[in-house]
Amino acid sequence: MELLKERIRNDGKVKEGNVLKVDSFLNHQMDINLFGEIGKEFKRRFSDAEVTKILTIEASGIGIACVAAQYFNVPVVFAKKTQTKNIAGETYTSQVESFTHGKVYDIIVAKEFLKPEDKVLIIDDFLANGAALLGLSKLVKDSKATLVGAGIVIEKGFQRGGETVRNAGVRVESLAIVDAMDENTGTITFR
Amino acid sequence: MELLKERIRNDGKVKEGNVLKVDSFLNHQMDINLFGEIGKEFKRRFSDAEVTKILTIEASGIGIACVAAQYFNVPVVFAKKTQTKNIAGETYTSQVESFTHGKVYDIIVAKEFLKPEDKVLIIDDFLANGAALLGLSKLVKDSKATLVGAGIVIEKGFQRGGETVRNAGVRVESLAIVDAMDENTGTITFR
Repeated sequence: MELLKERIRNDGKVKEGNVLKVDSFLNHQMDINLFGEIGKEFKRRFSDAEVTKILTIEASGIGIACVAAQYFNVPVVFAKKTQTKNIAGETYTSQVESFTHGKVYDIIVAKEFLKPEDKVLIIDDFLANGAALLGLSKLVKDSKATLVGAGIVIEKGFQRGGETVRNAGVRVESLAIVDAMDENTGTITFR
Repeated sequence: MELLKERIRNDGKVKEGNVLKVDSFLNHQMDINLFGEIGKEFKRRFSDAEVTKILTIEASGIGIACVAAQYFNVPVVFAKKTQTKNIAGETYTSQVESFTHGKVYDIIVAKEFLKPEDKVLIIDDFLANGAALLGLSKLVKDSKATLVGAGIVIEKGFQRGGETVRNAGVRVESLAIVDAMDENTGTITFR
């Protein structure tokens, strides 16, 4: 998606440790017009799929998912991150290891919001090591719903997540795949 | 807002301890068509205000804020909840006490996203004791931006938050004000 790549080139900042900072338009301050274009592009790429629900994860996936959902005309469910144990039986739960924060947390979705007849599209802002996406996929699998695929805004193509998730049989559509970043020059190379 | 009150009456659940559960359409599963109507209503109520930015707080405010922002044509910034100290000088910080979870956390916004020339509308899903809203107001005040007001989806009129925040001089527009709830009958009384 050219508009998105251009925006990343102009406003993204490459930081130490392969961090791509896009918090001026994607995940702290959010450019809603850009989100509209992102939503349209997800709809275009998944136009063949009969999506009944969009699943995302708090916090930075929610805004993108909600704006995109307007083009699919379906509800959004967001998985909650929690470090407290929930009452068994009421939620689908999955463990996710955060490499950024170096800790393991549970993600949960109330069972009533993922049903076997649902066709679920996962939407998230980033795909890096794939931990969050695999955790979300497990929630969908546990609910016996159909996982239609995953719409990702930015994939870090130099990390293993994309390969791992695609090898697990998930259809992943990433709107921008970053193959290399240079923190000294600020150069970002897209696939 | 009649459509919203009707939805709360039909799908809201009154739980022990004055908890109003609206997670089937507002803050876990999210009805995007309803969010569109909510966004239009916020725009109608604040049509006299020249809003330049919408401020909300993670996680459940984000979806509503992003859909509403389309009607204002402005970016959204969400305050992040954190229990880690941030580098002084880079963020505006405020302390919020959560009565639900019984702990104090910091909320932060990067300084670059709130400027003195901004006219800020705060949007959030709930107003109960007012702690989050007062915390957000403080962030705006610290940034020297103008606080236009606060758009709230559901205000718990039997708690003190609304009065406290209005007494502090903040214009609050709540789309549904709950004056009483009965957990035995499930009855919800609106103002």
